[in-house]
Amino acid sequence: MPFFVMSQKNFQEIKEIGFSKLINKLSSYDGNKRDEIIKGIGDDAVVFKDKEGTVSCASSEIFLEGIHFDVTYTPLHHLGYKIVTAAVSDIYAINAEPVQLLVNIAIPNKYSVQMVEQIYKGIDAACKDYNVQVTGGDTTASHQILAISVTALGSAPKKNLIYRNNAKIEDIICVTGDLGSAIAGLRILMREKKEWQERSTESFQPDITDYEYVVKRQLIPVARKDLIEAFQKSGIKPTAMIDISQGLMADLKAVAEASGLGAEVYSPAIPITLDTRKVADEMKEDVDKYAFYGGEDYEMLFTMREPLLEKFREIFDDFAVIGKMTNQYQELKINTGEGETIQVDLN
Amino acid sequence: MPFFVMSQKNFQEIKEIGFSKLINKLSSYDGNKRDEIIKGIGDDAVVFKDKEGTVSCASSEIFLEGIHFDVTYTPLHHLGYKIVTAAVSDIYAINAEPVQLLVNIAIPNKYSVQMVEQIYKGIDAACKDYNVQVTGGDTTASHQILAISVTALGSAPKKNLIYRNNAKIEDIICVTGDLGSAIAGLRILMREKKEWQERSTESFQPDITDYEYVVKRQLIPVARKDLIEAFQKSGIKPTAMIDISQGLMADLKAVAEASGLGAEVYSPAIPITLDTRKVADEMKEDVDKYAFYGGEDYEMLFTMREPLLEKFREIFDDFAVIGKMTNQYQELKINTGEGETIQVDLN
Repeated sequence: MPFFVMSQKNFQEIKEIGFSKLINKLSSYDGNKRDEIIKGIGDDAVVFKDKEGTVSCASSEIFLEGIHFDVTYTPLHHLGYKIVTAAVSDIYAINAEPVQLLVNIAIPNKYSVQMVEQIYKGIDAACKDYNVQVTGGDTTASHQILAISVTALGSAPKKNLIYRNNAKIEDIICVTGDLGSAIAGLRILMREKKEWQERSTESFQPDITDYEYVVKRQLIPVARKDLIEAFQKSGIKPTAMIDISQGLMADLKAVAEASGLGAEVYSPAIPITLDTRKVADEMKEDVDKYAFYGGEDYEMLFTMREPLLEKFREIFDDFAVIGKMTNQYQELKINTGEGETIQVDLN
Repeated sequence: MPFFVMSQKNFQEIKEIGFSKLINKLSSYDGNKRDEIIKGIGDDAVVFKDKEGTVSCASSEIFLEGIHFDVTYTPLHHLGYKIVTAAVSDIYAINAEPVQLLVNIAIPNKYSVQMVEQIYKGIDAACKDYNVQVTGGDTTASHQILAISVTALGSAPKKNLIYRNNAKIEDIICVTGDLGSAIAGLRILMREKKEWQERSTESFQPDITDYEYVVKRQLIPVARKDLIEAFQKSGIKPTAMIDISQGLMADLKAVAEASGLGAEVYSPAIPITLDTRKVADEMKEDVDKYAFYGGEDYEMLFTMREPLLEKFREIFDDFAVIGKMTNQYQELKINTGEGETIQVDLN
């Protein structure tokens, strides 16, 4: 996975074709299609129809250059993919199905037409993976930075919806996949960038093959569509759910607060890969901090009545039970597994 | 209407309270409420229910500092109001009713908490005027510039929907209100800013009282909810509709192209106020250019069978008939009223 380099031979300035031609180019973009869409790109507003007995839902994300991504190490198609992941992940997190996307992009002059197309390529790949359709949005100029905002719209049978506020005392707390790998990937990318900057006169080629897993988790995280499908297939419904975008403890806190409960997490149960541990060791950092506070993993946290655990495991097993909901309102505790319990204070 | 000045005595830096406290502050914001909203701010995604027999619709806008607004002359509550106008105007433009908004804001450190609250104050005022509810979104940091993205979601009985692509030959072309005043207001604001910059050591107080109408049209344009209500009340449906955000000719071109037709506009019929003419005279510019190409007026352009005109005028009369759809595909013509016909080439 090479660093992103602005290629000179394939660089068509946007002013060369003009903004209105660029918009035409992007509007004629022929991406993934959905039956629900009555009117997509090409009018003032998009129009869509829900199936009978369902409700609609929506979520929105904004990514800014320099804040949410660094173009020196973010391939632009990955950026396109990632913001779609972030938006649809919020739809999955209420146990609904994303259907369409509105995409706003503000593009600085330093970007070429090809670069913008790369972003759309990533958006398109994500649309295929999540089976959603781009139906509209706004494309404008920007002075300094690239800004992308994506609104995902979806639908679900009303009875399927799962909010954050319904976790019960003694519910088990589950998380999918592994945690902390996205921040581990970011640490590697930032280290390589620093080295690249320091040696900028030499032909420095960063070697991240040893870190492929964590770098991929940072650059192209995947939303847990498979978990939602497993809930549908099993007929099992968690009591509360949230996607882990801010970090495990921040997102668990949101569930605990909304449900009027506390939570206790058993630290040794947190799923952390060897790749992530290796990065933390190299950086001389605490891998638990990556897992607890890292964010951007886009894994799912859900709470469930304990007796349902075994049955659900038969359908879906890429998750770990990491703790229990408690009756101590707003108290988040970490049990270290060595007889110590730490009170977590997030602010 | 004084210029916007960053007040020192009411400036609380965002880092003073931290981003998560700011987000809490904004999430607890108690704005306009709608019955359709099942779940608003406070979960991963917003959930809403349409009335029976209706379809949902959505539109999205992004505004960037330095591109869409200049904070030296844009009061922040006006900015909040204006982006809501831009988003709901697109919903009205398909003859639907906006219901809710998702608001993404990326805030640079140079902004104070009070400034962000001003933006929300404007959003809230617009929500009341258009009867929509803020239901979610994303609040993040930004390095240099303020970026706001608003997605409006709405609904309509399916039979009411009006697209751009259904204008018929010989249909009359109508526009609400007046055109060119928003660009006239911008001209004044830019002139005053220049003077203010040149005399920055003196205590320069720009006097824009003589230009109140045009400046207001630039800073706080109002979407034409009243037109949509008139269509409902009269039972009359135009053949095609678009909101005039890009400029009369650009938006008329979109209708003509989508409908596979051409259009001829009678220049003396374009509604232009004396205030706008006065600005153009002062600037030694052609007022017709303001009206034809200015943009940001957020008036509505609609096409209609001529025989319906009289009946519709009885219900609603803030519009002018400015021309007719023709069978010359993609040809836009301006009849000057002095025996001359100009072919318009937009690219």
